[in-house]
Amino acid sequence: MNEFELIARLTASLPANPAVVVGAGDDCAVLDLGAPGKYFLFKTDAVVEGVHFTAETPPEKIGRKALARALSDLAAMAGTPIAALVTIGLPKNFAVTFVAAIYGGLNALARANGVAIAGGETTTNPGGILISIALLGWATPGQIPLRSGSQVGDAIFVTGTLGGSLAGKHLDFDPRLAEGRWLAAQFAIHAMIDVSDGLAGDLRHLLKGAGVGAALRKPSIPISPAARARARTGTNAKPALLAALTDGEDFELLFTLAAGDAVRLVDGWKKQFPHTKLTCIGKIVAGEGITLSDQSGAQTFNGDGYIHFA
Amino acid sequence: MNEFELIARLTASLPANPAVVVGAGDDCAVLDLGAPGKYFLFKTDAVVEGVHFTAETPPEKIGRKALARALSDLAAMAGTPIAALVTIGLPKNFAVTFVAAIYGGLNALARANGVAIAGGETTTNPGGILISIALLGWATPGQIPLRSGSQVGDAIFVTGTLGGSLAGKHLDFDPRLAEGRWLAAQFAIHAMIDVSDGLAGDLRHLLKGAGVGAALRKPSIPISPAARARARTGTNAKPALLAALTDGEDFELLFTLAAGDAVRLVDGWKKQFPHTKLTCIGKIVAGEGITLSDQSGAQTFNGDGYIHFA
Repeated sequence: MNEFELIARLTASLPANPAVVVGAGDDCAVLDLGAPGKYFLFKTDAVVEGVHFTAETPPEKIGRKALARALSDLAAMAGTPIAALVTIGLPKNFAVTFVAAIYGGLNALARANGVAIAGGETTTNPGGILISIALLGWATPGQIPLRSGSQVGDAIFVTGTLGGSLAGKHLDFDPRLAEGRWLAAQFAIHAMIDVSDGLAGDLRHLLKGAGVGAALRKPSIPISPAARARARTGTNAKPALLAALTDGEDFELLFTLAAGDAVRLVDGWKKQFPHTKLTCIGKIVAGEGITLSDQSGAQTFNGDGYIHFA
Repeated sequence: MNEFELIARLTASLPANPAVVVGAGDDCAVLDLGAPGKYFLFKTDAVVEGVHFTAETPPEKIGRKALARALSDLAAMAGTPIAALVTIGLPKNFAVTFVAAIYGGLNALARANGVAIAGGETTTNPGGILISIALLGWATPGQIPLRSGSQVGDAIFVTGTLGGSLAGKHLDFDPRLAEGRWLAAQFAIHAMIDVSDGLAGDLRHLLKGAGVGAALRKPSIPISPAARARARTGTNAKPALLAALTDGEDFELLFTLAAGDAVRLVDGWKKQFPHTKLTCIGKIVAGEGITLSDQSGAQTFNGDGYIHFA
């Protein structure tokens, strides 16, 4: 049983109440708390020593990454962050300066994004450092893209470039909050997700959510310089295209919208975010799964993103 | 540096914004999210294998305790829970049935208290099981007792009985949500906290918050049957009174209000909560620290509650 199968089993019959507009299974939960014109987004995300960072990772970057990952989930639902709580699990012999540096990196990113750090706790965690972020934000009802709304014929877009994030980007990325809000305010975004498990893996979440398939154009996949550099390191190196499809932790936005909106999107994006790449990588089709095509033909892509516990 | 000193250092200059009415340092953060007549309470709390439960603890009780602790913090601020997110860190070779049982206990308590489980995540945690609960609730502005409002002359009350919680209560307690709300709606509660670190330790939080001291009557401290039973187990057993003062995890409500309200409180409580003990254990005095008195005189009590990392 992998992470996704476990989640499916655990979330099959969770307690609900009328405040929950969208529960488990999307990037954030969506809550109606009675504030006029606003829904609230609720999310937790944890980073763990040995999984998401190592003993050598600078502590400022650990703290930064912990918050940035949660903000990226908020971005995928066109949210604006409000407040976060920080839970830090620490081994017995932790250095106080190390923990203060974690907070230093985290606080700096919080200030840059208007997020209040409203509390949290420190607790013992014998096996290593664990940081869990609980994040609350808001979004506008009717402008909150879910994972499930893709329609046959939609264009599939992705921001930035993909693959090779572990070379550095996973510690330094800027969550696409402004981009997510602009997209949802200006266009009927049918579905959106942040790319955390890898393009193929996260695209599959969108496809399963809507019962559709995707036809991707191989030459259009935006491969990152880091993925290309790694591919050149030897004959056993991961090919760059495969890296772009399956490496995790890109934290880009992957979304679908009506093909008829694509030209206006590309034009508007260039003016609004001139320094960030936006690429149409293919289209939503009837059926299921992912096909990859180029001038030599089409093939089914069965690879997946990073699977925890696999 | 113990847990409290670390927290003081880390929370000295946290990022803030106008939504935060009360930030780090109370039982929950208090947020103004623009909903008429409501503030929102935001809290995270984690339980860790080897600290808050053992490998022998039944998994249903682990899940129950994880949520119950967070609900107890909400109770201390007279809150009503809305939704929770569940983060579970798991060692590599976890049993799926064990995790499902954790959720079983947690979900049952959630349903009993009207809490939606709106999502969460599972992640790897090499050192053992860790469960972090992020909880959102609401309360009525003007009826949210903080830790800091005690005044000289106030009566100090505590619900239930204290000490010996590790004999079982820490896994089975019912969070005092109804009691907390009733208290804040019916009386001007000056300060309130849930007893998680031990009566003396949590009372000190109230005293420091207001710059006052406490005079407790030794014979009035409500000692639990579990603490008395343990005290009888041998000559080295912890004395029952000391257990009631310093054992952690009682999850009772400790609060102060004007002495003139005490009679009405006791009368009203007996009608509202006939099966739950409520005891006046002393009064708030000028100065600092805790004094314990009985017919033979008064002494300063320097003992504290359970201190993590000490």
